[in-house]
Amino acid sequence: MPDPTSHPHSGKGPRAAEAIFDATLRLLAERGYSGLTIEAVAQEAGVNKTTIYRWWPSKAPLLRAALLRARVLEIGIPDTGTLRGDLIALAEQVIALVTGVRTRSVVRAVTSGSGLPDDELASLTREFFADRFSREQPVFARAAARGELPAGIDPMLLLDLIAGAVWMRALLRSEPVPPGFAAAAVDAVLPARSGS
Amino acid sequence: MPDPTSHPHSGKGPRAAEAIFDATLRLLAERGYSGLTIEAVAQEAGVNKTTIYRWWPSKAPLLRAALLRARVLEIGIPDTGTLRGDLIALAEQVIALVTGVRTRSVVRAVTSGSGLPDDELASLTREFFADRFSREQPVFARAAARGELPAGIDPMLLLDLIAGAVWMRALLRSEPVPPGFAAAAVDAVLPARSGS
Repeated sequence: MPDPTSHPHSGKGPRAAEAIFDATLRLLAERGYSGLTIEAVAQEAGVNKTTIYRWWPSKAPLLRAALLRARVLEIGIPDTGTLRGDLIALAEQVIALVTGVRTRSVVRAVTSGSGLPDDELASLTREFFADRFSREQPVFARAAARGELPAGIDPMLLLDLIAGAVWMRALLRSEPVPPGFAAAAVDAVLPARSGS
Repeated sequence: MPDPTSHPHSGKGPRAAEAIFDATLRLLAERGYSGLTIEAVAQEAGVNKTTIYRWWPSKAPLLRAALLRARVLEIGIPDTGTLRGDLIALAEQVIALVTGVRTRSVVRAVTSGSGLPDDELASLTREFFADRFSREQPVFARAAARGELPAGIDPMLLLDLIAGAVWMRALLRSEPVPPGFAAAAVDAVLPARSGS
């Protein structure tokens, strides 16, 4: 049980917060947004309902927090020394996310809405991807500093092409993502641009 | 009312088939797979239940037929004279599909599952995209004949990059797809390869 005075933002009580986030995402995946209740989250996470309400007044902000902060959805920002290496590492993480046993159903639930009103869903996914995009900025800042990023290259378009290809292959075509897919996708959008 | 002896595969009774497909996709989008019933489709489409049952024994084959044959989800195979032009035309169609008022919710419903069992969903989307990919082959055959398709270029990867970028931007980031996005996506994966 977490210290009831702590707040997950503060870095205290992270184990309880993590259990709450996991339960939130799992319930969304299994039961949809209408089946996601604070009561069910509390039960699944093994915490008191009042503990959750102290931090999040309703399920909407709870789901938002789970999406932005759950460890299972986290990305690591790579620093391999080349833009090509960094983009491949990011693509590998997208592959792990959309094909992983623990994350696949969560990803599908979140991107589909699972019963969320359309505008809430749009606002949640917009925030989720904007947050990721801002975390990915160092990759492009370092690439620019190394002279690997020609003028006229839009970083968001690069990421949309690469991550989108993974999404298409794994979630829409429902085809296996073959070994080397991340590198092939990156090489298709960085031909002879990066030095490696 | 369609001729009860006709079959939509035969090209007869296409107006009834189209109304049935439209109702099927609309109901899936609005009520999910569990809310999709032959009875509701018949009512929405203004046809007799037995008319539907004569063609499709249950909702699973009906949904499959709607996905593969509904006019609203159809793609036109472009023949602009260049690979670049054809890919831009295909990308514009993906943009219209995922952002269009009539199709957006259908696309989201289908790709999310909307309550379909996971393996049925995978099998449906696999068939849907495999069907489209096979229809898109002439684009790549013509490009190869014109010498625009260097060895080592995987057509499916090209399509996944381009269509995936549209998907990422419109459905996952929930950001507007700016004018020129299709051309920018295509140019990012065809740099100095195609002649135009």
